[in-house]
Amino acid sequence: MIVVMRPDATPEQIKNVEERLVELGFKTHPIQGEEKTVIGAIGDKKTLSSEALITFPGVEKIVPILKPYKLVSSELKREKTTVRVGSVVIGGDELVVMAGPCAVESEEQLLLAAQQVKEAGAKILRGGAFKPRTSPYAFQGLEEEGLKMLSRAKEVTGLPIVTEVVDPRDVGLVAEYADIIQIGARNMQNFRLLQEAGMAGKPILLKRGLSSTIEEWLMAAEYILDKGNDQVILCERGIRTFETATRNTLDLSAIPVVRENSHLPVLVDPSHSTGSWKYVAPMAKAAVAAGADGLLIEVHPEPSRALCDGPQSLNPENFEILMEGLKPIVQAVGKKF
Amino acid sequence: MIVVMRPDATPEQIKNVEERLVELGFKTHPIQGEEKTVIGAIGDKKTLSSEALITFPGVEKIVPILKPYKLVSSELKREKTTVRVGSVVIGGDELVVMAGPCAVESEEQLLLAAQQVKEAGAKILRGGAFKPRTSPYAFQGLEEEGLKMLSRAKEVTGLPIVTEVVDPRDVGLVAEYADIIQIGARNMQNFRLLQEAGMAGKPILLKRGLSSTIEEWLMAAEYILDKGNDQVILCERGIRTFETATRNTLDLSAIPVVRENSHLPVLVDPSHSTGSWKYVAPMAKAAVAAGADGLLIEVHPEPSRALCDGPQSLNPENFEILMEGLKPIVQAVGKKF
Amino acid sequence: MIVVMRPDATPEQIKNVEERLVELGFKTHPIQGEEKTVIGAIGDKKTLSSEALITFPGVEKIVPILKPYKLVSSELKREKTTVRVGSVVIGGDELVVMAGPCAVESEEQLLLAAQQVKEAGAKILRGGAFKPRTSPYAFQGLEEEGLKMLSRAKEVTGLPIVTEVVDPRDVGLVAEYADIIQIGARNMQNFRLLQEAGMAGKPILLKRGLSSTIEEWLMAAEYILDKGNDQVILCERGIRTFETATRNTLDLSAIPVVRENSHLPVLVDPSHSTGSWKYVAPMAKAAVAAGADGLLIEVHPEPSRALCDGPQSLNPENFEILMEGLKPIVQAVGKKF
Amino acid sequence: MIVVMRPDATPEQIKNVEERLVELGFKTHPIQGEEKTVIGAIGDKKTLSSEALITFPGVEKIVPILKPYKLVSSELKREKTTVRVGSVVIGGDELVVMAGPCAVESEEQLLLAAQQVKEAGAKILRGGAFKPRTSPYAFQGLEEEGLKMLSRAKEVTGLPIVTEVVDPRDVGLVAEYADIIQIGARNMQNFRLLQEAGMAGKPILLKRGLSSTIEEWLMAAEYILDKGNDQVILCERGIRTFETATRNTLDLSAIPVVRENSHLPVLVDPSHSTGSWKYVAPMAKAAVAAGADGLLIEVHPEPSRALCDGPQSLNPENFEILMEGLKPIVQAVGKKF
Repeated sequence: MIVVMRPDATPEQIKNVEERLVELGFKTHPIQGEEKTVIGAIGDKKTLSSEALITFPGVEKIVPILKPYKLVSSELKREKTTVRVGSVVIGGDELVVMAGPCAVESEEQLLLAAQQVKEAGAKILRGGAFKPRTSPYAFQGLEEEGLKMLSRAKEVTGLPIVTEVVDPRDVGLVAEYADIIQIGARNMQNFRLLQEAGMAGKPILLKRGLSSTIEEWLMAAEYILDKGNDQVILCERGIRTFETATRNTLDLSAIPVVRENSHLPVLVDPSHSTGSWKYVAPMAKAAVAAGADGLLIEVHPEPSRALCDGPQSLNPENFEILMEGLKPIVQAVGKKF
Repeated sequence: MIVVMRPDATPEQIKNVEERLVELGFKTHPIQGEEKTVIGAIGDKKTLSSEALITFPGVEKIVPILKPYKLVSSELKREKTTVRVGSVVIGGDELVVMAGPCAVESEEQLLLAAQQVKEAGAKILRGGAFKPRTSPYAFQGLEEEGLKMLSRAKEVTGLPIVTEVVDPRDVGLVAEYADIIQIGARNMQNFRLLQEAGMAGKPILLKRGLSSTIEEWLMAAEYILDKGNDQVILCERGIRTFETATRNTLDLSAIPVVRENSHLPVLVDPSHSTGSWKYVAPMAKAAVAAGADGLLIEVHPEPSRALCDGPQSLNPENFEILMEGLKPIVQAVGKKF
Repeated sequence: MIVVMRPDATPEQIKNVEERLVELGFKTHPIQGEEKTVIGAIGDKKTLSSEALITFPGVEKIVPILKPYKLVSSELKREKTTVRVGSVVIGGDELVVMAGPCAVESEEQLLLAAQQVKEAGAKILRGGAFKPRTSPYAFQGLEEEGLKMLSRAKEVTGLPIVTEVVDPRDVGLVAEYADIIQIGARNMQNFRLLQEAGMAGKPILLKRGLSSTIEEWLMAAEYILDKGNDQVILCERGIRTFETATRNTLDLSAIPVVRENSHLPVLVDPSHSTGSWKYVAPMAKAAVAAGADGLLIEVHPEPSRALCDGPQSLNPENFEILMEGLKPIVQAVGKKF
Repeated sequence: MIVVMRPDATPEQIKNVEERLVELGFKTHPIQGEEKTVIGAIGDKKTLSSEALITFPGVEKIVPILKPYKLVSSELKREKTTVRVGSVVIGGDELVVMAGPCAVESEEQLLLAAQQVKEAGAKILRGGAFKPRTSPYAFQGLEEEGLKMLSRAKEVTGLPIVTEVVDPRDVGLVAEYADIIQIGARNMQNFRLLQEAGMAGKPILLKRGLSSTIEEWLMAAEYILDKGNDQVILCERGIRTFETATRNTLDLSAIPVVRENSHLPVLVDPSHSTGSWKYVAPMAKAAVAAGADGLLIEVHPEPSRALCDGPQSLNPENFEILMEGLKPIVQAVGKKF
C-alpha cells in the first residue's frame, strides 16, 4: 500500500499516518519527493479496512499495490483450471458449446431444442427453469417442473445440463438436477447465493454482472473458491454502456484480461450481450478467435413464439450454420471442436 | 405497440405480421408512409412477449407505447404515497434524515453514533448487520447480534431502525427488528428477495442499482407493490459511470424523473454515491433543493477506525454542521425539518 | 511515480527498471514487500512519457503520484479566480445566471428573449450563432449574421454576450462580438480551438465534454491557461451514461470535486444535461445548493417553434418562476443574486 | 414519426397537436388505444425540428421512425463501398492491415518502422504528425516536418500513408502528403473538420468517438458524404465505459451493426482500444473473425522509448507473430491477406 500525502501535509500529519500504519502492523518506508511525501507500507492485510486512512488529515490518496483476489489469481496457480462435466472438459483444448432455449417452456419445446442443438454439435444443454425477469408480469419459469424436463432431456440426449439458480433456498434442488449451476449476471454479487452454490459440490458457471468490472467478477469467483470449490467457469455476457444498438456491449477484451490474471476458464454468451440473433454468429466467431474456452448460445425451435428472449435466439437452421462456420475459426486458433 | 416494417418489407410480410398480431389479440392499424409501413397495435398485454415479433421477416423494430410498470405509476395514483414509521412520515412535508454507521461494529459504537445523530436531528437510525461486500475477506457484519444491538439503540434513543437484508431466508428475522427493511443497490434485481421482503409487512427502502435505469428501478418497486405492500421508499445512491473522481455518479435528476412518473417518495444517499465525506454536505444540500423527501447519511463516531466505508462517513461534528447547513435549504424549498 | 513490479520479477528486471529510471533523471527508492517490489521514483517530469516503462519486462503497473495539471490547480493558487465581464463578476459572492435561446434564429426572436431574460434577472445573454449539430441536415446557425444580432441585443439590453465558437478560423470573428467565448462540450478536446481561443484575450466558458473525466476537463482548461489566459469559467452540462430518462446525467458532484482541485469558477447547465424543460428548475436549484457559481439556462420566447433544443428550453413565464424560486436557495447558501 | 399522447390528454390537446402537424406538412393518422392516443405522422422532413412538439400540452413522447442518416445508409445503397488507395482496396475481399508508430518521432524511427511493418505484410503505413494530446505538456507531433518524413517513408517502401489531421486549417497541407486522411476519435464531431476533410479529394478514415453511439458515428460520416466524398472508412477504436482493465472497451459488435446499416467498410484499431500491447493480438484476431475489413495497429521499433502510446505498441517481432497468427483466421472467414 502506498499512502500519498498532500503537498501541504505537515511533518506532524506525516508522523501521525506513519504511527497509525505501524499500529496496524505495517512497516513504513517514507519517500520525500519534491512536491509530496509518499509512504510505502509493507504488510498489507487484505482483511484490513486500511482505506479509512484516507480520512487522516494531510492524506491525499491511498494506492493499493496487491490485487484483492488470491485463490482465483494466476499469481497463485499458473496452470489453467479445467472443469470436467461427464466426458466434457471445459478449459482444455476443446471449444465447448452450450446451447438451448432461454427458458424451459414445455417438454416438447425442450426435447426438440435439445435434439437440435445436439445434432449441430453442442456438448451441453442450457435452459432456464428459474428466470429472473425485470417485470413481475413476465414469465418467471416453470421452476421444479422445468428442472424435471431438463432431466428428461438429459436422459434422452445424453447432454449434461446447465441451469440457473436465483435463490439460495433453491441451490440444493437445482444441484440435484444440474450438472453445472449457473449464477446469472444480476446475481453476480448476490454473495449469499455465491456461498451457497459454492458448497453444492457442482461446477459453477458465473456470469459477469452487467456493470461489474473484471476485478469485481474475479472477486465474486473468489467467494466460490473460498468455499472450497475451484470448478468455476466464467462467462462474459456484455456490459452496460451508453450504446443502444445492441442490448449490451460484449466486452471481448475481458478474455485476454481474465487469461492474464486468472487460471479459470472463460466462456462468452453472444446472445444476451447483443440481444439480436443477427449479431450472434459474428460475435461467436470473434469470441473463439479471441481465445474463449466455449460459448453459451440461445437456440429456440421457433424464436418468434419464445416466451423469453425470442429476439436473440437462433433458430435451429441458423445454429447449424453457425456451428459449421465456427469450425475453421476453431481450427485456426488450434482448438478442437 | 408500434411495429415498424423495413423499407423493403413485402406486402406479404406486412400481412404476416398483421395476422400474428390479430392472433395475439391486438387490433391493428397499418399506416403506409413514403418509405416505411408502421403498424399500430392496440391491446398491449403487458405479460405478452410481443418483442419476439422482431424476428418476423421484414420487421425493423418494435416500439412499446405503454409504460411497463403499473402499480408504482403516477398514471394510476396521482397523490404522493406517504410512508409512516412510528411518528415519522416520509413523503410528506418534512425532510427526513436517516443517519448512522455503515456497519454495526459494537454496542458502544452504535449507541454512541445513535445518540450523536439523534442530537443533531436525525429521525431514523441506519446501521448494517448484514453487509454485502465485494471481497469475501472483508467484514461481513455482526448479523443477528448486530440486529440486537440496533434494537437496544432504538430502546435507548427512540429512533426507529432501518437495516439491510441480503438473503430471502433472513427476511423474517430482519423484519422482527427493523422498522424499515433496506434492499441494497446490489440486490435491486434480486427478485426473490424483493418478493419476500414485499410480504414482510414492513416499509421497504429500495436503493437504486448502481447500473439500473430509473425504469428498472420502478419495475423492482413494482415487484414489492405486486405483493400488496405500497410502503416503498426509493433511494438514489449513485450510478456507475466512467468518472473516477467520485465512487459513483450521484444522479439527482432521478428525483424529478421519479416524481413525474411515480407516487413513491424518494430519498438520496450522498455518502455511497460520492464515496468521500468531503462531498457529502454539498450533495446533501443539492438533493434537498432538487426535491428529495429525505437523506440517508453515514455517520461514524470515528471514521478513521470504521470497519466499513470509513472514507465516506461523516464524524459527528461534521454531521452536526451539515444538519445546521441544511436548515435554510429545507426552508427554501418549503419543507419542515 | 511508483513502479510496481510483478511478483515474479527477477532481480535483474528490477535492476533494469532502476537503471532506466536513473537514465530518465529520476532518483529511485526501491521498497521490497513480501510479495512485490515497488520502486518510488522522484523527479517526475510531466512532459516525459514515462508510461512506456510499463513495457519493461517484470513491470506490473505504473502509478503516477503528481496531478497532471498545474496552472489550474488549487495546489498552485489557493484563492478562487474571479472572471470579470463588464460589471458582472463570476466566481465571487454573486450567483450569475446566463440565459437565452439555444440558437439565434432572428433579430425579433433574440431581442424578445434578451429582454425577457433580463427582466427576470439574468446578467448575461447566451445565444448560438455557430451550432455544432449531430446531423448535417439540421439548422447550423446564422453565423456572422447571428453574431451581429447578438451585438444589437447587447446594445438594446446592456447584457454582455456569451456565444460559442466551433472553428479555430472563427475565433477572431467571434472574439469581436462576444464578451465570453464558449467552447462547447463536443470541442472540449479540440486542442487547436482551445489554444486559439486562449489567445483571443476574452474570458472562456469551457463546457465539460460529455464523456470527459473531471481530470481531462481540467487538462483542457490547462491548455487555455498555458496560453496566458486565466479567465476561464468551467461549465458542467451532463455526462453520457446508460440512463435514457434524461438526455445526459448531470454530474453535480463535479462542483465540489472542481472546488477541491482547482481555483476556477464553475457553472452548471441544467438545460442540456436534462434535455427536458420540466427538469430544469429542480436541477438549477440543486446546482446552486451544491455551490455552483452560476447557471447557463436555455430560454426561448416560444419553445415549441424553436429551431434547436426546443424540448429543453424554458418559456419566459417558467424562467421567471424559476428565478423567483432560486432566490431563497441563493440566500440559503450565502450568495447574492 | 409517432406522437404518443399522455393518458390524460384532452381531445383539444390532441386536436392541437394534429393541427400543428398538418401545419408542418405532415399527414396525420390518429389511433385511439385503450389508455393512450398515438398519432402517426407521415412526411417526416429530416431537417425539421419536430422534436419541439414534445413541449405541446398532453404530449408524452415523440418516436422517430426514419433513420436520421441517408447517404451512408444501406437502405440507399446495398452494395458495399470499396475504397481504393493505389493498388490497395479496402472493403473488398482482402484484409488490409495499416500499421506503424503512433507518432512520427524521427526519420530513422519512421523508416525503420515502415520497413518492418512492410516486411510483415502491412499494406499501408500509419504515423501521426499532428497529435491531439490530453496534456499541453505532452509531445504534440512534428507537424509538417513529420509529414515530410512520412512522404520519404512512402518513397522508400512504396506504402501509402494514413495520417491524422486535427485542424481545418491543416487539411490542405495534410492532403498533399496523405493517401488517407484520418479523423481521430476526439474530432469525430468536429463538424468543420469533417466538412473540410470531405472536400479534400482524399479517402477519409473516420474513427468512432470514444463516447459516440454508432448512429452518431454514421451521422458524422454523413457530413463527409454530404460533401460529395463517399470514400470513407469507418474505424472502431473502443468506447468509454466503467471498465478500467483496458483503456477503452473495444466494441466489436459495432462491426455487424455497421454492416447491417451502412455500405461503408469498417476497420478495427485494437491498439488504442485496449491500451496494452498484450491484448492487441487476441483482439485483432477477434476483429477479423467478426468481419472487419482491416486493422489499424501501432508498431514501434522500440516501444519502451516511444514518445507516445508506448504501452500499447507492438515491437516488430510481436507484430510479425501477430501477422502470422492472423493468416488462418483470415482464411477461415474467406478473405485474402
